[in-house]
Amino acid sequence: MSNQKIQIGIVGYGNLGKGVHKAIAQNSDMELVAVFTRREPSELAAGAEGIRFESITNAEAYKGKIDVMILCGGSATDLPEQTPFLASMFNTVDSFDTHAKIPEFFEAVDRAASENGTLSVISTGWDPGLFSLNRLLAEAILPEGKDYTFWGKGVSQGHSDAIRRVPGVKGGVQYTVPVQSVIDRIRSGETPEFTTREKHLRECYVVAEEGADEEQIRQTIVNMPNYFSDYDTTVTFITEEQLKSEHQGMPHGGFVIRSGVTGQGTKQLIEFGLKLESNPEFTASVLVAYARAAHRLSASGQTGAKTVFDIPFGLLSPKSAEELRRELL
Amino acid sequence: MSNQKIQIGIVGYGNLGKGVHKAIAQNSDMELVAVFTRREPSELAAGAEGIRFESITNAEAYKGKIDVMILCGGSATDLPEQTPFLASMFNTVDSFDTHAKIPEFFEAVDRAASENGTLSVISTGWDPGLFSLNRLLAEAILPEGKDYTFWGKGVSQGHSDAIRRVPGVKGGVQYTVPVQSVIDRIRSGETPEFTTREKHLRECYVVAEEGADEEQIRQTIVNMPNYFSDYDTTVTFITEEQLKSEHQGMPHGGFVIRSGVTGQGTKQLIEFGLKLESNPEFTASVLVAYARAAHRLSASGQTGAKTVFDIPFGLLSPKSAEELRRELL
Repeated sequence: MSNQKIQIGIVGYGNLGKGVHKAIAQNSDMELVAVFTRREPSELAAGAEGIRFESITNAEAYKGKIDVMILCGGSATDLPEQTPFLASMFNTVDSFDTHAKIPEFFEAVDRAASENGTLSVISTGWDPGLFSLNRLLAEAILPEGKDYTFWGKGVSQGHSDAIRRVPGVKGGVQYTVPVQSVIDRIRSGETPEFTTREKHLRECYVVAEEGADEEQIRQTIVNMPNYFSDYDTTVTFITEEQLKSEHQGMPHGGFVIRSGVTGQGTKQLIEFGLKLESNPEFTASVLVAYARAAHRLSASGQTGAKTVFDIPFGLLSPKSAEELRRELL
Repeated sequence: MSNQKIQIGIVGYGNLGKGVHKAIAQNSDMELVAVFTRREPSELAAGAEGIRFESITNAEAYKGKIDVMILCGGSATDLPEQTPFLASMFNTVDSFDTHAKIPEFFEAVDRAASENGTLSVISTGWDPGLFSLNRLLAEAILPEGKDYTFWGKGVSQGHSDAIRRVPGVKGGVQYTVPVQSVIDRIRSGETPEFTTREKHLRECYVVAEEGADEEQIRQTIVNMPNYFSDYDTTVTFITEEQLKSEHQGMPHGGFVIRSGVTGQGTKQLIEFGLKLESNPEFTASVLVAYARAAHRLSASGQTGAKTVFDIPFGLLSPKSAEELRRELL
């Protein structure tokens, strides 16, 4: 590790950006230079002492002063625009998570980064990210087999929003929950066919408006097409106080399990799992580890877009290759 | 993937070497050229049709005809000699697993490979190997935390041998078993201090000789220093038939769990686990995936010794980078 700390910029200061700020504090080889925002910088500064806030339009002034920009915007509209733009000036890391659009996103970022001699690690986090790594590893080791990804227990933002749009609903949250009996069957070595909906339940916690018909709300939710009608869905009515005290966290997690065979039908099982009290703080911690790798790859002369598949784990750790071999191999 | 299959040699034809042979059959981009042995090649050939056996002393004749040699000898005496020797002529992959001696082993292999323009991946398999990767990954993402490695349920060869040396014992096998209550505490977010012996039980299945004093055998085993005296050890007497029918497999597995915190004490848990019906067949499958990576790294001009920490997962898969991004990210 060199004496010079890795200079980090954060773009976006929602839950993920705040998580990155906290994660940098846990990594002594890194230093936060500034947080870039589309909002009015002075508004944010009021609530966060010791952080320098800058308008995103001012990012260019930091060229050469920031080793890696960690991009904390959303995948729908922010990152498709921000990553290629910022990759033209900085090394970047992001958590672009629209699986179907990764190939075109990769192309756009790769072009911007390659042309400008920077390096961008796209689609880190845990899915895509750590889960993808485990899908690849398990498939490469057990080519004859089947893999299963489970998500949860965790909050689904899209489904929570759908609940809140139901007439008579004041507030609510939806948890995606893996079906334990399905997990047990797979862990025992079975390789059944399951759709995502057969593998997951949907648990809804709902605050009704005064005088609203709870049974009607329940029926509207469980029969909602696309969101709930094809799932086993439970609706539990709670008070506004309970919603605030028991459902404000952002837990998540899940499993990637591959069940395969070697030789003559010898069963082999590989499983990777996460149990997270805070999804954004964990995702932020993954972004920060990959920022270290991005900095090192760039320093060694590499450019263009990279994914977690292209990066050796050794580059994620602040320890030297010798230390890693001695302590962790 | 090029049209030319990766040409593989196997050195050693015990359980691991046989596992590699089976694993190559599951990977259509690879081809077995020959198995090299210290035994009389014609003896082995009798029981294994379609395999070319060669004396290890004849390996040099295969220079240029084999892309990667997969070394399947033991870590105590075989590999410290064989890996540097063969690395002077071939790319190699091995599963050297004496953790304490990895640094000096790495140095010796690195010297041989660097001087001769070859590439050697050392200490693959699952521990060292996949478990090491997960220890590194989890520590890099959650720098504030603690990790726990559990082994089993699985056969310990050294402990099984120790049982069989007890007077009055005709045969026997020992399983190392993780303590479920300890695993449960860690999964629930506790980070207690545990020694290896507190985390594991030892289950012994013993066939007594006719007329032997079973209670005396039990006492000798459970009080045996170094092997059993500090562990919770159970001894179950079985018949020779039971030993043959129920205890001939080589199951193993285990877990690497890291329990860490982000932000202000937010608990985060990362877990990786294996449940293997055959330890040697699984280890062989890992060796074969790393042989693919060794071939590609060597083809791209890299030389010297590498570990799993140095190798991006993308190189383990027969799929192209584009396919991997589209299908698995």
